[in-house]
Amino acid sequence: MFMSDTETATSVATALHEDGSPERLAIDTIRTLSMDAVQKANSGHPGTPMALAPVGYTLWSKFLRYDPAHADWPNRDRFVLSVGHASMLLYSLIHLAGIEEIDADGNKTGKEALSLADLEQFRQLSSKTPGHPEYRHTTGVETTTGPLGAGCSNSVGMAIAERSLAARYNRDGFPVFDHDVYALCGDGDMMEGVASEAASIAGHLKLSNLCWIYDSNHISIEGGTDLAFDEDVGLRFKAYGWNVIHVDDANDTAAIAAAIETFRKTTDRPTFIVVHSVIGWGSPKAGSEKAHGEPLGEENVRLTKRAYGWPEDKSFYVPDGVAEAFRKEIGDRSKPLRDEWVAMVDRYLQANPELGAELDAMLKDELPAGWDADVPVFPADAKGLASRDSGGKVLNALAKRVPWLIGGSADLAPSTKTDIKDEASFEPDNYAGRNFHFGVREHGMGGVVNGMALSHLRAYGSTFLVFADYMRAPIRLSAIMEVGAIWVFTHDSIGVGEDGPTHQPIEHLASLRAIPGLDVIRPGDANEVAWAYRAVLEDASRPAALIFSRQALPTLDRDKYASAEGVRKGGYVLADCDGEPEVVLIATGSELSLVVDAYEKLTAEGTRARVVSLPSWYRFELQDKAYRDSVLPPAAKARLAVEMAGSMGWDRYVGSHGDTITMSTFGASAPLAKLQDKFGFTVDNIVDKARSLIAEAASTDKE
Amino acid sequence: MFMSDTETATSVATALHEDGSPERLAIDTIRTLSMDAVQKANSGHPGTPMALAPVGYTLWSKFLRYDPAHADWPNRDRFVLSVGHASMLLYSLIHLAGIEEIDADGNKTGKEALSLADLEQFRQLSSKTPGHPEYRHTTGVETTTGPLGAGCSNSVGMAIAERSLAARYNRDGFPVFDHDVYALCGDGDMMEGVASEAASIAGHLKLSNLCWIYDSNHISIEGGTDLAFDEDVGLRFKAYGWNVIHVDDANDTAAIAAAIETFRKTTDRPTFIVVHSVIGWGSPKAGSEKAHGEPLGEENVRLTKRAYGWPEDKSFYVPDGVAEAFRKEIGDRSKPLRDEWVAMVDRYLQANPELGAELDAMLKDELPAGWDADVPVFPADAKGLASRDSGGKVLNALAKRVPWLIGGSADLAPSTKTDIKDEASFEPDNYAGRNFHFGVREHGMGGVVNGMALSHLRAYGSTFLVFADYMRAPIRLSAIMEVGAIWVFTHDSIGVGEDGPTHQPIEHLASLRAIPGLDVIRPGDANEVAWAYRAVLEDASRPAALIFSRQALPTLDRDKYASAEGVRKGGYVLADCDGEPEVVLIATGSELSLVVDAYEKLTAEGTRARVVSLPSWYRFELQDKAYRDSVLPPAAKARLAVEMAGSMGWDRYVGSHGDTITMSTFGASAPLAKLQDKFGFTVDNIVDKARSLIAEAASTDKE
Repeated sequence: MFMSDTETATSVATALHEDGSPERLAIDTIRTLSMDAVQKANSGHPGTPMALAPVGYTLWSKFLRYDPAHADWPNRDRFVLSVGHASMLLYSLIHLAGIEEIDADGNKTGKEALSLADLEQFRQLSSKTPGHPEYRHTTGVETTTGPLGAGCSNSVGMAIAERSLAARYNRDGFPVFDHDVYALCGDGDMMEGVASEAASIAGHLKLSNLCWIYDSNHISIEGGTDLAFDEDVGLRFKAYGWNVIHVDDANDTAAIAAAIETFRKTTDRPTFIVVHSVIGWGSPKAGSEKAHGEPLGEENVRLTKRAYGWPEDKSFYVPDGVAEAFRKEIGDRSKPLRDEWVAMVDRYLQANPELGAELDAMLKDELPAGWDADVPVFPADAKGLASRDSGGKVLNALAKRVPWLIGGSADLAPSTKTDIKDEASFEPDNYAGRNFHFGVREHGMGGVVNGMALSHLRAYGSTFLVFADYMRAPIRLSAIMEVGAIWVFTHDSIGVGEDGPTHQPIEHLASLRAIPGLDVIRPGDANEVAWAYRAVLEDASRPAALIFSRQALPTLDRDKYASAEGVRKGGYVLADCDGEPEVVLIATGSELSLVVDAYEKLTAEGTRARVVSLPSWYRFELQDKAYRDSVLPPAAKARLAVEMAGSMGWDRYVGSHGDTITMSTFGASAPLAKLQDKFGFTVDNIVDKARSLIAEAASTDKE
Repeated sequence: MFMSDTETATSVATALHEDGSPERLAIDTIRTLSMDAVQKANSGHPGTPMALAPVGYTLWSKFLRYDPAHADWPNRDRFVLSVGHASMLLYSLIHLAGIEEIDADGNKTGKEALSLADLEQFRQLSSKTPGHPEYRHTTGVETTTGPLGAGCSNSVGMAIAERSLAARYNRDGFPVFDHDVYALCGDGDMMEGVASEAASIAGHLKLSNLCWIYDSNHISIEGGTDLAFDEDVGLRFKAYGWNVIHVDDANDTAAIAAAIETFRKTTDRPTFIVVHSVIGWGSPKAGSEKAHGEPLGEENVRLTKRAYGWPEDKSFYVPDGVAEAFRKEIGDRSKPLRDEWVAMVDRYLQANPELGAELDAMLKDELPAGWDADVPVFPADAKGLASRDSGGKVLNALAKRVPWLIGGSADLAPSTKTDIKDEASFEPDNYAGRNFHFGVREHGMGGVVNGMALSHLRAYGSTFLVFADYMRAPIRLSAIMEVGAIWVFTHDSIGVGEDGPTHQPIEHLASLRAIPGLDVIRPGDANEVAWAYRAVLEDASRPAALIFSRQALPTLDRDKYASAEGVRKGGYVLADCDGEPEVVLIATGSELSLVVDAYEKLTAEGTRARVVSLPSWYRFELQDKAYRDSVLPPAAKARLAVEMAGSMGWDRYVGSHGDTITMSTFGASAPLAKLQDKFGFTVDNIVDKARSLIAEAASTDKE
C-alpha cells in the first residue's frame, strides 16, 4: 500500500488517468495546492494534506452542514483540524468551498475568506494563511491548532457545548442546536495524553455528536510509528466507550462516506473512524517521514503531479469547474438548512420571547440586563473567608443571572468551590446540567473549556494552582485565540500548608503572568474577588486566571480603605498617608491584609506608608503612565512587595532600590502558620524590612 | 462490597476477630497508624492507606527484594507510591520494615529511617513525614509523588533504567541488574494523560519488569468515579500491550500474591493488576469520598478500631511482634539476596575490571576520567551553526565518554539533534540502545526521564521549547527532587519562523527560570554550548534546561572576546571598553551576536559599551555580589537587554533606568528575518535604543 518510489507512483498515475472523475479532480486540486504552497513557502507539511485530501473532500462536500456565505451560523457543523500542521488541507478546503470572509468585528467584508492569492502567501508575514490555522485570523478556522492533542480536546468541548445549548434552548419543533463536530486527528494526537483524557471524557458523556477521524499513517517524525507507538488505538477507544470504525484506504471515498453515515446514525456514543492512509500519497516520498515536515522539492512536485496526471508546470492550479462544483455541493446542501434554521429561529423568538432574548444575548457575547445584581458586597470582617469561598459565592451570584456561565473542576469542586448550587451535573442523562465533572484530567479540561468558550459559552475550569502546570498548553491557546475562558485556580500558595511542596505553587503566578494577554487576577479579599469576577465577565474577548486562596482572608473595611473597584485597573492605592509616602507596601491576594496590618503599625509609629493592592499586573500595565505613576510614584524608592510566591517579575514594581518578601525555594509540609514564620510572611518581618528600606533610601538620597 | 455504615463495619469486626492472624495484625497496624497520624495532624488522606494496607503488606513482606539495612542497594526492587497522598501507607511500611536511614551524603546514620515518633510528626514542619513522600528527604522514598500520574511515569523510567543497565553491565553469570519496579496507582493516576502516555511507552517497550497495581475504589474527590470515569481501564491496558490481572478484593492477600507471582513469571510485557478496594475500609466512612482527604474524626477512628478488633484508645499502637515479624520477612528474604549480589559484584569487578570501574563511577555519580576530552572547541565562524547543532555535536562528544548519558526526544530527534550517532535505538529487541523514541508524549517523557535519573542515569529528554508547557510538572519535580535530569529544548524563540505563534515560545524562558533550582542555560554560540553542557554534566544534583536555537548563530571569535568558560558563572563580560561603560548590552542565546554587532558599531562611533552574556540567571544569582556587580556595575544605569522572548524578569538586570528589546505579544508566522524586522531584533534598533538610554542616563545624572 505504501508507494515510496517513482515507479510505484507511475502505476498510480495510470490508475488516476482512468479515473478522471470530478471527485478525483477536486481531491488532486487539494493535494497540488498543498504541495505548491509548501514548496513556494519552502516550509511546511505537504504529506498529510496529500494523504487526507479524500477525507477532507468527502466530509466537506458530502456531509458538512456549513453555509459558505455564513461562516458564523451558530448551528453549523464544526470541523477541527487537530493536525494543525496540515493547514494547507484546511486552507484549500476553505478556498474551494468559497467561504466568505467575516472580519474581527463580525462583519462580512464581501471577500473570499481565502483567495488563490492568499494560498500563494502561505506562511508569509501578515498573510491569511499562517503556518498553523489561527482562530480569529482566518474565517473558517474554528480553533487554533498545531500543538498536538489540542484540537481533539477542543472538539470535545464543542460537542459538549452543542449538547448543553440544545438542552437549554431546543424546544419541541425548534431544534435550534443540532450540529455535529468533526475532528481530524493524527498519530501525534493519539500519542498525546490530552487526547486520551478528552476521549475518555467524551466516551463517558456519550457525545454522539462527535466524530474523530484518525489518520493512521504509520509515520512519525523520527520514522515509522513502530518506533514508539504500536498499541491498538481502536481497542483503546472501545475501552473509552466509543464506536470504532475502520477505513482501510484513505482513497476509498465510498468507505469514508459510509463511515460518516454510520456516525450520523449513531445516537449513543461518539464515533472514532480509523483511516489508514499513506503520507505524501502519490509522491516519491510517499509513506516516508520525509513527506511530513518539509517541502517535497521541485522535482518531486513535478513527479507527483505527473503521477496524478496533473499539468506538471502549473502551480496553484484549480481546474475549471472544480471550485464551482465544490461550492455547489456544500452550498446546495447547507444553504437551505441555514435558511430553514433562520426562519425557525424567527418563529422561536416569537414563541419563546424570554428564552429568545437570552439566546440572542448569548450569541452576541453580551450580558443579560442585571447580570451582576446579585453579586454580594461583603461586610468588613477580621476573620473573613477564603477567596475560594467568596469566589464560590460570587460565581453562584453570577451564574444565576448568566445561564451560559458553566464549568467545573478537575475532580476538586468541593475544594475549589466552583459548583453552581441548585444546578445538576452535566451527565449523559442530563445535558442540561451546568456542573462539569472533568475528572482528574487538567489538560483535557483545559482543551474542553476552550472548545466550550469557542461556542459562545463562558466556560470555566478549576483546579489547584499548582496543577495549572498540567494545562499550560490550553491556557496559552486561550490567550492566543483571545477566547473568554475562565481559569479558576485555588490553593494559591504555601497557604496549602500540610500537603507540602508538591502542592504549593511557587513559580506559577510568574509563569501565568508571563503569558501574553492572560489576565491573571489574585484578589486580596472578598470584595476584590467580586470586582475581579465582574471584570472578567464583562470581557469575553480574553481569558482570565482567577487566583484564590485556600485559607481565610480578612475582609477589609472598605469605608476605611479604598473601594475594591480598583481591581478593574489592576492596581490601586488601598491605604495612604498624608504627603509623600516614605515606604510603599505592595501586595496581592492573601498577603494584602498582612501589609495592611504592617501599614497600620508603621502609621501608628508615625511612618508615612502607602499600601498598593496589585491584583492584576496585566490590567495595571494597560493603564497609562500617569495612572501607574500615581499609584507607584517614581520618587518613592522604598518599595516592598510581599507575595507568597517566587520573586520573578517583582523588580518592575519595586525598582532597583526596593525589595520583596517572596519565596526563593520550594515550600514545605507544615501548618500554614509555621510556614509563614519560617518564610518571613509576618507583620513583624514586613515592618522590619520596611524600616530598613526607608533607612536605605534616606542614606542613598544623602549620597 | 462497600461498607458505608457502622453496622456493616461491625459485621466486619466479627470477621476480623475470627482472623487474628499475624498478617491481619500487620495490616491493621498499617491501617491504624495511618488513621492515627492523619487524625493527629488533623490533615491528610486516611482512606487509601486503609484500603491498600493488604496490598502494601503482601508486596513488601512477601515479594519486595529490599534489604532494610541497605536502602541504597542498586539492585533493590523499586516501590513507587504513585498515590502520593497515601503517604502514611509508605511511611508505615518504612517503619515496619525497619529501613535504616541514609543521609543526604549517602552515609548511614545508625537510626531508623522512620521511628514511631517520626510517624507522630506526620505533616509537621521539618519532620521526616511530610504530607507527600519526598525523595532525598526520607530514606525509602524512591521518588517524590503527589501530583497524579507522576509516580506512574517515573516507574516506567525506572524499569527502563533497569533494562538499560542490565543490557550494558550484565554478563553471563553476573546478573548485576535484575530488579523489578512496582507502582501503586489510583483512579486519579488512571485519568491523567501522563499515565496513559507512560503506559503506552511501557507497553511498546515490553517492560516485563514493571508492575502497576491499580487501586480501583470507584471513588474520586467529587464522588463516585461514575461521575467522570467509567471507561474499561483493563481493556485500555490490553490495548497498550500489558498483561491485565484482576483482583476482586483488596483484602484477599492470596489473590494479590497470586497476581504478583504471575507478574514475576511474565517475561514479554508489563503487568497491570486491577485491585478492587473499598476506600477507608472498615470505617463508618468506608466507600465514600469522605474517607479520602480529611481525617476520619476521633469518634470514627474509635469506631473503626473497634471494627478491626483494635484497642480503641491506643494511638500509634504497634502490637508486640508485628514490626519484628515484618522485618524478619523482608529481611530474611532480601539480605541473602543482597549479600550474594555484593559477592557477585566483587567477582565481577575482578573479571571485568574496565566495565567494573565504569559501573563503580556511575553508581557514585562520578564522571569517568577524560569525560570531556572530546568536547570540541569551535573556531570563529561568522556563519556559525545553530545551537541545536552544536548541542548535538557536544552531546555526542560527551556520550562517547559517558556511557550512562542516554536519552531521546518526543518524536523530534531529527530537529532537536539529540541522537547519539553510531548508537542503536532503545527498543524491545535491543535494550542496549541509547537513543530513546518517547513518541509525541512530552509529559510522559518528562516522567520517564525523571525515573531514569533516579536510577543513576544522566538522562535527557528533548523537544521544542514551546512544548515544555506539556511537561512542566515533571520539570518541576526534577527540581524538587534535585535529580540530574537534562532537558534539551530547541526552537527557542520566534526564530522558529514560519510555524507561527503556536510554535514560538515567548513566555517559556521566564516560566522555566521561575522554577526554583532549575538551571536554565541559553548559550549564545557553539562554545557557550560546550561550556554549558560541561557545567551540566559536572553536577548530577540538579536538573538543567538547555535552550537551543533552530537558526544558525555565528561562532564568536574568542581570541577577540572573553572565553566562553564564563558560562559556568551564569553571566560574564564578553566584550568591554576602556573605563566605565556608557551602556551595557545584555543578551542570551541567539541575541548575543546581535548585541556584539551593535557593540562593534557603538564602539566604532566612540561610545564606551560593554557586552554581558547572561546565559544562566540561575548560576549568575549563585555568584557573590562582588562578582555580580563587577559584571553589571550598579553605577551603569544605561542597560539594554535583548532577548527574543517576553520581558518578565529582566527588570532585575536592567534596573529602573534600563530597557529591553523583548516580545510583548505572541509571534507570527513568517520567515525569521521578517519577524526580526517586525519585532525590532536588529542591530540598528539595538544601537538606537542604546543611544537613547545613554542620553536619558546623562539627563538623569544632570537632574
